[in-house]
Amino acid sequence: MSQNIYIEPLTAAAFAPYGDVLDTSGAPDKMINQGMCERYHHRATIDIVNGAAGISIFKATPRSFPIYLDMMERHPEGTQAFLPMNFDAFVVIVAPDVNGAPGVPRAFLTAAGQGVSYNRGTWHGVLTPLHAPGLFAVVDRIGEGPNLEEHWFETPFIIKTKHEYTSN
Amino acid sequence: MSQNIYIEPLTAAAFAPYGDVLDTSGAPDKMINQGMCERYHHRATIDIVNGAAGISIFKATPRSFPIYLDMMERHPEGTQAFLPMNFDAFVVIVAPDVNGAPGVPRAFLTAAGQGVSYNRGTWHGVLTPLHAPGLFAVVDRIGEGPNLEEHWFETPFIIKTKHEYTSN
Repeated sequence: MSQNIYIEPLTAAAFAPYGDVLDTSGAPDKMINQGMCERYHHRATIDIVNGAAGISIFKATPRSFPIYLDMMERHPEGTQAFLPMNFDAFVVIVAPDVNGAPGVPRAFLTAAGQGVSYNRGTWHGVLTPLHAPGLFAVVDRIGEGPNLEEHWFETPFIIKTKHEYTSN
Repeated sequence: MSQNIYIEPLTAAAFAPYGDVLDTSGAPDKMINQGMCERYHHRATIDIVNGAAGISIFKATPRSFPIYLDMMERHPEGTQAFLPMNFDAFVVIVAPDVNGAPGVPRAFLTAAGQGVSYNRGTWHGVLTPLHAPGLFAVVDRIGEGPNLEEHWFETPFIIKTKHEYTSN
């Protein structure tokens, strides 16, 4: 019997055990460019071992609810940040580690303009946009050797909205 | 008498002396997530000295043409990448270094979904979106000490489109 996971709004407090939320919440840390630009400073730290950070682009196929979660993954050698390049919500799925496997997942819906960075070694679902073009800038480890662990669930979790989510 | 600079489309070849273009041009380097996601791998290298890379969010006021360019800046201690978080074009202005000051600038118009990373020490204009919300993820040096040089022109350059640019 599959377990339903209901989606929650993404907030820095709720996401804190899993990583950083990148957004413009709160006052800007600094005004730059003669007052024309707000800088929200250092919203995510990059933490990479055995390699260097680089920037890649991911383009993912949009999904729709309900979302079947049959696998989660983690990267023991580095943080991984996802910065959406289209101004749309996406789904972020994370789980605590329980004896080397993901515990019960939590699913978050971003607001448009929010990105996330997963802490090093944090269990997370694959990239899950809801809208085309599903384009993301990704800051993660560039290096040799393995940096991916996958965990497949015997029974998928089902990610649902409590209320019908209307895609635009 | 101000000098006009006409805007060019942003291409990796034209931009090569100044930095990296981040986009999905060419074939994906890898398919991931069971075929649901294209990875365009390592499109920009992060090169930071005397500090560490971090991720910030910038929110800039949109501009319109003609754009008056009275100042350029550079960061001697690191690359600086701008990843737009709304799917819109923006303006990228760069210049070669000529004896410690910017030479004649070049101005590029991105396609929606393109980001840029300026090479360490490259003269560039301030962040110049054309569309609200003007939101960008920025990967640059987080650290103590100065990392900004500014050069003010006696006479501003004027950045123009050859053809009228229609904002959406």
